[in-house]
Amino acid sequence: MPNPQLPITNDSILVLHGPNLNLLGAREPHIYGSTTLDDIDQALKEEGAKLNIEVRTLQSNHEGVLIDALHEARSWAKGVIINPGGFTHTSVALRDAVSGIGIPVIECHLSNTDAREEFRRHSYLAPVCKGVIKGFGWRSYLLALQAMSYLMTNAE
Amino acid sequence: MPNPQLPITNDSILVLHGPNLNLLGAREPHIYGSTTLDDIDQALKEEGAKLNIEVRTLQSNHEGVLIDALHEARSWAKGVIINPGGFTHTSVALRDAVSGIGIPVIECHLSNTDAREEFRRHSYLAPVCKGVIKGFGWRSYLLALQAMSYLMTNAE
Amino acid sequence: MPNPQLPITNDSILVLHGPNLNLLGAREPHIYGSTTLDDIDQALKEEGAKLNIEVRTLQSNHEGVLIDALHEARSWAKGVIINPGGFTHTSVALRDAVSGIGIPVIECHLSNTDAREEFRRHSYLAPVCKGVIKGFGWRSYLLALQAMSYLMTNAE
Amino acid sequence: MPNPQLPITNDSILVLHGPNLNLLGAREPHIYGSTTLDDIDQALKEEGAKLNIEVRTLQSNHEGVLIDALHEARSWAKGVIINPGGFTHTSVALRDAVSGIGIPVIECHLSNTDAREEFRRHSYLAPVCKGVIKGFGWRSYLLALQAMSYLMTNAE
Amino acid sequence: MPNPQLPITNDSILVLHGPNLNLLGAREPHIYGSTTLDDIDQALKEEGAKLNIEVRTLQSNHEGVLIDALHEARSWAKGVIINPGGFTHTSVALRDAVSGIGIPVIECHLSNTDAREEFRRHSYLAPVCKGVIKGFGWRSYLLALQAMSYLMTNAE
Amino acid sequence: MPNPQLPITNDSILVLHGPNLNLLGAREPHIYGSTTLDDIDQALKEEGAKLNIEVRTLQSNHEGVLIDALHEARSWAKGVIINPGGFTHTSVALRDAVSGIGIPVIECHLSNTDAREEFRRHSYLAPVCKGVIKGFGWRSYLLALQAMSYLMTNAE
Amino acid sequence: MPNPQLPITNDSILVLHGPNLNLLGAREPHIYGSTTLDDIDQALKEEGAKLNIEVRTLQSNHEGVLIDALHEARSWAKGVIINPGGFTHTSVALRDAVSGIGIPVIECHLSNTDAREEFRRHSYLAPVCKGVIKGFGWRSYLLALQAMSYLMTNAE
Amino acid sequence: MPNPQLPITNDSILVLHGPNLNLLGAREPHIYGSTTLDDIDQALKEEGAKLNIEVRTLQSNHEGVLIDALHEARSWAKGVIINPGGFTHTSVALRDAVSGIGIPVIECHLSNTDAREEFRRHSYLAPVCKGVIKGFGWRSYLLALQAMSYLMTNAE
Amino acid sequence: MPNPQLPITNDSILVLHGPNLNLLGAREPHIYGSTTLDDIDQALKEEGAKLNIEVRTLQSNHEGVLIDALHEARSWAKGVIINPGGFTHTSVALRDAVSGIGIPVIECHLSNTDAREEFRRHSYLAPVCKGVIKGFGWRSYLLALQAMSYLMTNAE
Amino acid sequence: MPNPQLPITNDSILVLHGPNLNLLGAREPHIYGSTTLDDIDQALKEEGAKLNIEVRTLQSNHEGVLIDALHEARSWAKGVIINPGGFTHTSVALRDAVSGIGIPVIECHLSNTDAREEFRRHSYLAPVCKGVIKGFGWRSYLLALQAMSYLMTNAE
Amino acid sequence: MPNPQLPITNDSILVLHGPNLNLLGAREPHIYGSTTLDDIDQALKEEGAKLNIEVRTLQSNHEGVLIDALHEARSWAKGVIINPGGFTHTSVALRDAVSGIGIPVIECHLSNTDAREEFRRHSYLAPVCKGVIKGFGWRSYLLALQAMSYLMTNAE
Amino acid sequence: MPNPQLPITNDSILVLHGPNLNLLGAREPHIYGSTTLDDIDQALKEEGAKLNIEVRTLQSNHEGVLIDALHEARSWAKGVIINPGGFTHTSVALRDAVSGIGIPVIECHLSNTDAREEFRRHSYLAPVCKGVIKGFGWRSYLLALQAMSYLMTNAE
Repeated sequence: MPNPQLPITNDSILVLHGPNLNLLGAREPHIYGSTTLDDIDQALKEEGAKLNIEVRTLQSNHEGVLIDALHEARSWAKGVIINPGGFTHTSVALRDAVSGIGIPVIECHLSNTDAREEFRRHSYLAPVCKGVIKGFGWRSYLLALQAMSYLMTNAE
Repeated sequence: MPNPQLPITNDSILVLHGPNLNLLGAREPHIYGSTTLDDIDQALKEEGAKLNIEVRTLQSNHEGVLIDALHEARSWAKGVIINPGGFTHTSVALRDAVSGIGIPVIECHLSNTDAREEFRRHSYLAPVCKGVIKGFGWRSYLLALQAMSYLMTNAE
Repeated sequence: MPNPQLPITNDSILVLHGPNLNLLGAREPHIYGSTTLDDIDQALKEEGAKLNIEVRTLQSNHEGVLIDALHEARSWAKGVIINPGGFTHTSVALRDAVSGIGIPVIECHLSNTDAREEFRRHSYLAPVCKGVIKGFGWRSYLLALQAMSYLMTNAE
Repeated sequence: MPNPQLPITNDSILVLHGPNLNLLGAREPHIYGSTTLDDIDQALKEEGAKLNIEVRTLQSNHEGVLIDALHEARSWAKGVIINPGGFTHTSVALRDAVSGIGIPVIECHLSNTDAREEFRRHSYLAPVCKGVIKGFGWRSYLLALQAMSYLMTNAE
Repeated sequence: MPNPQLPITNDSILVLHGPNLNLLGAREPHIYGSTTLDDIDQALKEEGAKLNIEVRTLQSNHEGVLIDALHEARSWAKGVIINPGGFTHTSVALRDAVSGIGIPVIECHLSNTDAREEFRRHSYLAPVCKGVIKGFGWRSYLLALQAMSYLMTNAE
Repeated sequence: MPNPQLPITNDSILVLHGPNLNLLGAREPHIYGSTTLDDIDQALKEEGAKLNIEVRTLQSNHEGVLIDALHEARSWAKGVIINPGGFTHTSVALRDAVSGIGIPVIECHLSNTDAREEFRRHSYLAPVCKGVIKGFGWRSYLLALQAMSYLMTNAE
Repeated sequence: MPNPQLPITNDSILVLHGPNLNLLGAREPHIYGSTTLDDIDQALKEEGAKLNIEVRTLQSNHEGVLIDALHEARSWAKGVIINPGGFTHTSVALRDAVSGIGIPVIECHLSNTDAREEFRRHSYLAPVCKGVIKGFGWRSYLLALQAMSYLMTNAE
Repeated sequence: MPNPQLPITNDSILVLHGPNLNLLGAREPHIYGSTTLDDIDQALKEEGAKLNIEVRTLQSNHEGVLIDALHEARSWAKGVIINPGGFTHTSVALRDAVSGIGIPVIECHLSNTDAREEFRRHSYLAPVCKGVIKGFGWRSYLLALQAMSYLMTNAE
Repeated sequence: MPNPQLPITNDSILVLHGPNLNLLGAREPHIYGSTTLDDIDQALKEEGAKLNIEVRTLQSNHEGVLIDALHEARSWAKGVIINPGGFTHTSVALRDAVSGIGIPVIECHLSNTDAREEFRRHSYLAPVCKGVIKGFGWRSYLLALQAMSYLMTNAE
Repeated sequence: MPNPQLPITNDSILVLHGPNLNLLGAREPHIYGSTTLDDIDQALKEEGAKLNIEVRTLQSNHEGVLIDALHEARSWAKGVIINPGGFTHTSVALRDAVSGIGIPVIECHLSNTDAREEFRRHSYLAPVCKGVIKGFGWRSYLLALQAMSYLMTNAE
Repeated sequence: MPNPQLPITNDSILVLHGPNLNLLGAREPHIYGSTTLDDIDQALKEEGAKLNIEVRTLQSNHEGVLIDALHEARSWAKGVIINPGGFTHTSVALRDAVSGIGIPVIECHLSNTDAREEFRRHSYLAPVCKGVIKGFGWRSYLLALQAMSYLMTNAE
Repeated sequence: MPNPQLPITNDSILVLHGPNLNLLGAREPHIYGSTTLDDIDQALKEEGAKLNIEVRTLQSNHEGVLIDALHEARSWAKGVIINPGGFTHTSVALRDAVSGIGIPVIECHLSNTDAREEFRRHSYLAPVCKGVIKGFGWRSYLLALQAMSYLMTNAE
């Protein structure tokens, strides 16, 4: 979990990676590519630096850990980017956490979930998120970071 | 988790709070009010004392922790009151735990789930619980405690 | 129907029993127990007296009579407890009456309807009621009375 | 409603005609024929006499009246034949009355409901009735009477 | 129920108001406005006079009373305007009455039922009515009266 | 298959028993009783004799044999009573045979199929049969024979 | 498309006829009658004149043309009457146009769509229209014009 | 339609705006904001210039025009960004055009369609698009442009 | 659109190609093959000549243009062959045009739509067409032409 | 079953007629016409001779016989035309036979199944057939024969 | 069918192969492998010998033959292993046979039916079988034989 | 979690027990029997020894722990046997883990899930497992071990 002892600026955000995303680079590369999660986290931190946003990241296969992290983020983060993985389609608890923390959340996915199994078409989280970005591989995260930057800097 | 070292009377019950209930008082107050979970636990213990029932409480955002607690309660509790939060609508595992422990369980909710999103109308747990109480804010717990007292003291 | 000639205090409520509840004590006792409706009404009046609430009761197998009684209650009752029986799952007219009278209504059931046939899982009335209590036999009514007392005496 | 003052033998049954059946002979004769309800009642009484069964009949367009009559039949009837008309497809309250009175009930219809609109294919009452006879015009009642005679006189 | 002793002209029609419409002017005015049912009946009689149509009206919360009134109308009315209220979505018995009486029936509603809850989108009566008018507040009735006048005076 | 060499009167009917009915008396007696198929056939022939109807019977577990028999019956039978067993819910081919042969067919069942599994509620054959009788054990056949007698002897 | 060069009064409305309505008088006269679209337009203009409403009309089989016309009407019309024809059941784009233009729209149909194929029971447009009138042949338009007059002249 | 006479570079893309988007800035601003379509097109062209991408734009309320434009884009564009508006949920023809042209297409929306009506949750186009971006107001387009830049410049 | 100035014989038919069929030969050749639409039109005209049928053809991506063409064909064509493309599954307007023009229409498809996505299994047009031919590539058209020849020359 | 002793050429095909097709000419002639199955078989053989295709035919009301014939055809037939009758909508076993034999199969129907009962819209066989032809009476077979000839003689 | 003349030991079982399994080794080898049914039967008999179980086998494409064999097995077999092939998903008659014979039945499949078409996910037989084994190619049978051995030799 | 320090052979497999399986022997013995999980693990290790397979086991009520264990197994196990308990029907995350680890997984259950509640009929994991074994009590695991041995030792 992100270390709360670090000095916190006003521009920190949390990036949450859901279940199985730790397998990235190894798991079903024909769908997800060979980039690893560390590569993504590194790219996000670098891109965040350019946008003046501190990016903290967390991956967990545990729904409860993701919920805890969302709750904790209330005290230090200005926004959250979440790739809920398989929880996207099944977790009302995660949805309630997103709608309960009162900061903007963006849902993103590596693959275009609409082009896969029927059950991946429905997201419990999307209706309580600001927006959704999916289908651009690891660059979905970069786009979500850019989107978060928009949300944090200007109104309409 | 409730400390099992405490001397256990015959009248102990477990009150389980599911995911996001730790946010109570802060999260969506127009739906849930401003009472905190500590307030509720305190009120339950006091009301329990009047009814001669020791009340132990546990909140967790982790489905597994809730299941573990239900299992452990078999050895010391006479009944369980559970507000399963978002797990109400999605967790067969929790349902199986409820039906498997062989002690009466009451489902309760702060809000009237029937008056919210369509997916909140279905509960996996309710069919294996003794009864359901919902819609009375934190007093749903008090009513559940009273109901448990009925279940523990007289038959029909 | 409750006699409107009686002097009316500020703390009167109406308890409505829907179709077939007059059979209580005789009908399917393995589900509903052997307590009669008169027993329940008596218990409610006594418990009401303790809570300073005058309890008037009415049973009918006629949907229209129940609707009429709900309408009439607008002029004298501070709340309504209703066990709609089989109408729970089929009556939009009763739902409209509940939502139209502008006083708090609580739905209650003797049995845990979620543990019975699939069609008993849906209630047309619940979404326009304050809350729902079910599964505690005739004590569901006592709990509903206690819940009404909460609703009548304090805000949150 | 059948007059309870008449001396009651052990072989009385109640025949209930649901909503709109009073129109028989006038309403949609291409579906229901030109026989009137009085003709049917007369035929049933005559046929009943042959079978040593006293037949009492009641028609009502009021669901509550039908439920009341079912309840009352508990004290004097050995069985009930019911043509629930449109209530077949919509009334849980009537179903509960049938399952609650503890005497055998047979559902019958003039028309073959399976050959009409889709919504007429489902009956709330049939699962709690002994059996169903439909599609033989007013003779469906005669067959139901014969069936009731079987139920009353021999076991298997 | 309309008094059948009155001399009956050839141009009489029946206007039936279903359940809860007696609350008009009081119930949920943001949906239904503040006009009372008496206001509407008065307006209909006046408008009817201009169109040379005698308008008789009846309101009931009892499905059976509405069915009885439809049956009775066969002997004196040239048409029926019905606002079935909550019965619209649940009553096959009322549908059968409409299709059985052999005179033209128009369904009308104060609110635009298609813009409300999902279950209000389906009408059991509409398929056996001549037409439907909804969404124009109490003027829906005036338009239905005008429509009935068309039906009564010219063919196509 | 019924022997076509026998002299054929004008009053012959075919009784078809579908799959697994040969097990009668042995199979699941708590549902179907202990009467055997031979007992039933014998009873039908005797009862037929009283009604001046020659009854020929056939049982098969082969859908094709049942269809062939229906086709053949066109040349000699005035009606058919069929208990389609499990084919009731799955066979469009049998339905087409029933609707194609141009003589009246009655569907009957030993058990009340509406009171069993959900999939037994739908019959492909019922909509093209004259009527349906079910739930009276082997006497369902007797009632069907009586019903067929009505169909063969008088119009309405 | 209505010529925008004409002097525009404050009381102009647009009447839009959707796909296939140009066939009126020829197409399926047993459903729609023999009146032509020109007849209807003429009648509307005349009736409009009586009500002090200028009526402009447009028919198109092109969804895009109907949307364009709705957009353009924002600059000159006080209301729109639309018979969306087959687009009623399939066009979200037309629905969005109706909800986007900010002037009252009434949906009307010649036939009673609820009495036809199942798919004609659902309207994408109705929920964003003021009201719906259907089943009165070409007079549905006249009634819609009268309804529009109500909407334009008085509030409740 | 984009003028094909302009000299075409290798880095041109087409941005398609579907039905009602011409109303932007005026239509339902609480959902879509006050930015106009011209503002968006200008911003896209400017941002495109930075990314070395020539951006051509087209808005139409006509499904056929959008399909034609997609076809034509095959000869000059390296990619397409499409906001299909209401066609998203209803147009198989547009889907077939997207899948038939053999160049990458990105679906984008101003609003978060998952947070609106149920029918807006399903997209016919998304499964044949590269990815989807929605919920960020007019900046959804900017993000889509950035995403297209990724698709055009690097593989994984 | 077919030029109406040409001298018209009694044996002309219209062949309508729906959206995206202009891409034939280029679009997804593994499904549709490499034959172009011009090839097909040429083959149809030649084959038509042998059958003494003048074949006129039209392709459009605009639903409205297809509807207009169907309407116009009433004045000169003896039949229509239509490949509605993606409109097959979504267009009630096109269905109404087919059922409204009063000349025989045959639906045909290059691919076997039943072997593709689930949503391609339902056709709005098929129920109002004479017949359907699909799955034989461009030869589906030839077969439809042969079928039309049958329809035009002999009754049964 | 086709006699396998006959000398087999390279151009033989099997035509399978499913259940109830032996009734052709007698059964529901308003749907199927008065041509008999022998007429059709004769016409197919003659037409086949012109196309240099030996046509063998088989009708059975037994699903198993049809499956056996499909299996056997693997050794001598170059293709199969099948009218599966009622099995179309219910037989996975027949589907598996079609997909398992490795030679092209064409599904054909006399009537336009899409224009009949809802359950006739789904075919289990169509997705594993080459194509489908329906609605042209007995000439559907002729067209299927022509289609088979295309399949046997040229690739695309 | 297994020859009943053979001396029967106490440990005989029946292995039933449903439709199309005779094609094994030839049909769709990418799904089912190249082992033939004879290979499987041989392996089962050998393995059975080791387990002291006589294995008799039967394959048929006729549902009725499979039902007959199940019935006959009551007199000599201690258990049945059945691979119902396509009948798995469609045959209530086979289900009734399984539940009616009163000896343990195991369902097995070569392929993992859950990984194929949606309709293969539902089995009518599984709920009345002891257990299910699928996905292990022809070794599914061996495992089923082992499972049967467990069922025959020990209780829990 | 299995201790990774142990020397690892090439033939190790992981057996995962999902939620509530720790209650085995105590929980609902009429469904699951009285064998404990330790008994099962012991039996598996012994049987594994015979098959030259090292069996490591893990039980957890935490979905995340199960996912972690699946991930870890990639480095040392040749296969996985999983009884997902209640997660079977609800966990896409677990499914993704199974499909992501690239080693064969077998799903097994003590009870025959098809014979229980409707919601237990669907498994999210089964489609990505090699096969499924269920209904044989604790011996389901033994059979799965035997199946795994097949998968590990021979191809087809």
